[in-house]
Amino acid sequence: MRLADLSEQSQVSIATIKYYLREGLLTPGHLVHTTQAEYDESHLRRLRLVRAMIQVGRIPVATVREVLAQVDDDSLSRTIRLGAALWALPRAAEPEPDDPAVIAATREVNRMLTRLGWTDAAELGQLSPVYRELITSVASLNRLGYPLDADDLAPYAEQMERTAVHDLDRMERHDTPVEQVESAVVSAVLFEPVLLSLRRLAQEQEATRRFGL
Amino acid sequence: MRLADLSEQSQVSIATIKYYLREGLLTPGHLVHTTQAEYDESHLRRLRLVRAMIQVGRIPVATVREVLAQVDDDSLSRTIRLGAALWALPRAAEPEPDDPAVIAATREVNRMLTRLGWTDAAELGQLSPVYRELITSVASLNRLGYPLDADDLAPYAEQMERTAVHDLDRMERHDTPVEQVESAVVSAVLFEPVLLSLRRLAQEQEATRRFGL
Repeated sequence: MRLADLSEQSQVSIATIKYYLREGLLTPGHLVHTTQAEYDESHLRRLRLVRAMIQVGRIPVATVREVLAQVDDDSLSRTIRLGAALWALPRAAEPEPDDPAVIAATREVNRMLTRLGWTDAAELGQLSPVYRELITSVASLNRLGYPLDADDLAPYAEQMERTAVHDLDRMERHDTPVEQVESAVVSAVLFEPVLLSLRRLAQEQEATRRFGL
Repeated sequence: MRLADLSEQSQVSIATIKYYLREGLLTPGHLVHTTQAEYDESHLRRLRLVRAMIQVGRIPVATVREVLAQVDDDSLSRTIRLGAALWALPRAAEPEPDDPAVIAATREVNRMLTRLGWTDAAELGQLSPVYRELITSVASLNRLGYPLDADDLAPYAEQMERTAVHDLDRMERHDTPVEQVESAVVSAVLFEPVLLSLRRLAQEQEATRRFGL
């Protein structure tokens, strides 16, 4: 398809598409004449992803470029590509190791990992910014006077473990590794508001069940 | 305790506490002299809640005042107080009823409700801004080219239903209805980052299980 068709099908303006092309967020079309390029389904898919990251996820252009480089790097394993894409997304600040709230949070998160039989903290601490992000968010609750311990965290982690099975099943429905990693990014950026709305709706249902209307 | 003790225990500055008092977010202390007021545990608890809403939830002062009025209004049922508090929290824009993406989202959300046996849409549409918020977030995915149908939504809603049982169990551990509703607000404002971190961590675990490191 031509640039005008790509714009129509994606509902993204030609000016914005040209900006994404200049910024290297979209690979150039296939040149059929000196002044005319052809685009295909992979451009449309990538364009949707870029727009979702920038407009909904409010992710800076430089970070989008970084995430896409990892999505496209097929020398990396699938877990690493998936992790790298998720890790480049916006997240909480790094935890301060000497802060007492961080020390308490680390202890409880590690107890939770042991209880669930998840990859242990020593290994995760090296690998996973998500582990450190979790510690930061638990520490900030500690600091505000709402401490969470392993008993509080474990049931939620178990629910999220079941949810992750669906997440990965949905991801694996896509054919190519690039599409799979793209879908993981979409799910991280776009699906979180849906999940939080579902949570609030479920809380309402449960409250109605317990206390009536 | 005196103002200085309240400040020390909460780690909130005296100037900020005075600002909250002036804005009516905190009830005045009990006057023991013309120039000296005494504060108790309920002030400390409320102060923590206000700070969490303003500093972490980035909720405007006027909205915090509105939420607290509903938390404190014991003429309302517990479900309504809980809902009113959650509904005053920041949320997505109202869905546009004529937008095709909204029409498709409404159809799929309603199919999901029927399948789960949740309170039906006609009743919810009147009552629940959370229902409309869910439609807005599903519609925005539709518009971006990532449609979600009832089959996609239902498993996540079922997980959130189980999570809501824990949420309400945690809430009911508190003694008074005011404390219960306060804890629901804390959970909505502060617990969401923890839940999303747990979700990303669970995705990593599941990816490692399926694809290795």
